Order: sequence, then structure tokens, then C-alpha cells
Amino acid sequence: MNQDEAKLLAARAAIEELPASGVIGLGSGSTAKLFVDEVGARVKAGAAYRGVPTSQGTRAQALALGIPLLGDEEPWDLISVTVDGADEVSERLDLIKGGGGALTREKIVNASSMRNVIIVDESKMKKRLGESWSVPVEVLRFGFFGTCERLGRLGGVKQRTKDGSVFVTDAGNYIVDVKTGPMDDPGIIDKAMRQIPGVVETGLFIQRADVVIVAGPSGIRRATARS
Amino acid sequence: MNQDEAKLLAARAAIEELPASGVIGLGSGSTAKLFVDEVGARVKAGAAYRGVPTSQGTRAQALALGIPLLGDEEPWDLISVTVDGADEVSERLDLIKGGGGALTREKIVNASSMRNVIIVDESKMKKRLGESWSVPVEVLRFGFFGTCERLGRLGGVKQRTKDGSVFVTDAGNYIVDVKTGPMDDPGIIDKAMRQIPGVVETGLFIQRADVVIVAGPSGIRRATARS
Repeated sequence: MNQDEAKLLAARAAIEELPASGVIGLGSGSTAKLFVDEVGARVKAGAAYRGVPTSQGTRAQALALGIPLLGDEEPWDLISVTVDGADEVSERLDLIKGGGGALTREKIVNASSMRNVIIVDESKMKKRLGESWSVPVEVLRFGFFGTCERLGRLGGVKQRTKDGSVFVTDAGNYIVDVKTGPMDDPGIIDKAMRQIPGVVETGLFIQRADVVIVAGPSGIRRATARS
Repeated sequence: MNQDEAKLLAARAAIEELPASGVIGLGSGSTAKLFVDEVGARVKAGAAYRGVPTSQGTRAQALALGIPLLGDEEPWDLISVTVDGADEVSERLDLIKGGGGALTREKIVNASSMRNVIIVDESKMKKRLGESWSVPVEVLRFGFFGTCERLGRLGGVKQRTKDGSVFVTDAGNYIVDVKTGPMDDPGIIDKAMRQIPGVVETGLFIQRADVVIVAGPSGIRRATARS
């Protein structure tokens, strides 16, 4: 089984985590995209789902599939389950997210969701966060260089670009990737980053996954958060 | 001496805190406005000041006065002194700022400044923060109701309006005012607010004032931060 097949398997397993109807948080990124396709198929077959998309890309995909969506500012107390991908998952099921740049919306939807299901392939599973990935941080443009300087005390800082241009988030901000190295306590790093004026959000999701569905060469396994 | 005269006295006293030339952070609000007028007068008289404005309003005022300005994204490592107002100042010289809605830019400029001078009239001085004011919090539009619900655990939440319309910040976000009541430890409240996804910045400035110039009926007094 190659990586694409594994991703598809994980996306399909996530469908089993959904209620029969209700509001679903729709993640961003390549694995979540496959999940959204599956939700679209269910809606086409008559399932009464409504979605909250975590990025403009996911919004466009969901609309094209005919999934009814809630508005950006609506109360979402009612999100039953959000299914999203991740860039790195630690043994404690903490996450680094934001490879696609949608980390802030992803974190808001995650926080508004009763349950959070993360779908990844085996390559994303690490002992500690930061082993391969940097931490994406959404940063206001105003005072950008000063904010980068302060983030730089936590690791090497690199401004995100895409296709040779500066990357701009849905909210009009920049992303910087902070190379922290492996983190023994990513919660402390998260808090330190959030204390810096100009930081909108970080890609560290600390104890925010209820279930992680991992697709590996030998099939699917489920890792659940210890309470 | 009435309140307007007191504000003017404080603004003039702040001028004495400036170096002979260099980069100056220009605050927002009614008292800071009087200070910016004074800086404009000095520039007109030949002083080599350049400014970093904390709001679009201050930017417009400074341009009209002929004060040269640095760009929004420039490195400002070089801000010598920022002079700004405050809505409440505690005995420990912690501040509530953001009555004018510019709290995020004000906090970024404050963090980038070697020294911070706060100018207020006596009515702003309180034992504890939260005695009269609510804490303004800048919040993303995305997921707004959920973010308000979480902020609501810290006090009554009211969305900021201006002239009957929803108030929108320079960065395109909303402001909510959180009525915490008097705070024994505003630093803990600040951290709790910043942990909520969707919160961009709070109006709590904890140990961020080096000098507070207070104008009262009997003249000016200077309060300095204990180290």
C-alpha cells in the first residue's frame, strides 16, 4: 500500500466516526481532502450533514460537492465531530498542524468541536513533536520583523512562501515556520509563542485530538487520548 | 485645571522623556494625540524624529504634521521611546488599553520599544485593574461566537460598536469588551485569554510601562516601575 492508498483508507475510517447526521468540522490538507470527498458522497446519498470548513480551499471543495455549510461567524456549539489531518503526531497525541497554512481556522474549529478525529499516515507518527517539522505560526504583518525576532529565540525562523511568493493566510496574515527541534514539553513552547505580541496562533495542538486514525502498510490502527 | 488641561500637561511632560533624535512610537487615543501634536511641533522646529504610529488614526495625524514615518513591516529594533495613553493604570503600573480599539498595534509597538512612557490623567489611576474598565480583546471574525462563549467564562462579554455599527480593527477583526471586575492578578487573566483560539490580542499590558506620567489637579507626578 502506498501513501495515497493509506490516506484514503484513513479518510474512509474517519467516516465511521461520524454521527448519522449533524454538523461536521471539515479539515484542510491532502488527507482531509479525501475525507471531505467521502462526506460529499454521503450527502449525495441523502445524509443530513452540514459542514464548517477550516479553509477557503475546503470551503470551495465542500460547495462543489454540495455539502451545506454554516457561515463563518455562526455559533457552532453544535459541531459534533471535526476530522482533520496533521503534520506530526507525538506519542502523547499532541499535534503539529498548519503545513497548508490554515492552522488558525483549524484550531478554532477544533476548539468548537465536541470530538476531534485526526487522520494521518504512519509517516507522521513521531516520538516527540519537532523531530521533522517546524512549528507554523500565524503572525500579523504589523511589526512583522520584531515579532520574528522574538520568535527566533525559540528556534530558527523562516517566512512561509508559496510558488515563490510570500504566503498570505485567509485572514491576511503571514506564516513563519519556527524550527524548534524535538520538544519535551510542546505546551510550554505554545504558551511562550502565544505571549508574543503579533502572534495570532500557533500550529501546536496540545491534547486536542480525541482519536488519531493511523494508516500504515498493514492497515488502520486507532490511537486514543489518555484521559 | 480641567481634564483637557491635565492631558495637555501630561503630553508636554512626555516630550521631556524623548531623546534629541531617533525613532519614537506614537500612541493612540485622546492624550496620545496631544503628544503627537507636540512631536509634530518639534519636527517642524528641526528635530530629527521618525515615528511608528500605533493606528491608522495616528498615522494620518502624524502625516498631516509632517512627521516622517517607518513602514508597518519594517524592523523597529530602534524604537527609543513609545509614548501612549491608557484607560486604567494599577498600583503595580499594569495597564488596560484599547478603549480606542488599537490595542494590538499598541502592544506590538510597546514590545518593540526600549522604553515605554504612559501618559494619563489622575482619573485613570486605580488600585486594581478592572475596577471601572472592561478588558478589550481583539478577536478574529472566524468562529466569533464560539470565541465569545469561551471569553465569557472570564466575565460578561460585549461586542464593541461605534456609531451604531460593529467596530472593525485596522486588521479587520472585532473587539469584545470583557467585564472581569477588579483583578488581583491580571497576568493570569491575560494568559487565560491568550490561550483561547481566535483571540488575537488583549488590552492587558502587564509590566509594560517604564514610566507613568500622571496629570492631576495639583500638577504632574511621575510613577516608575519597580524592578
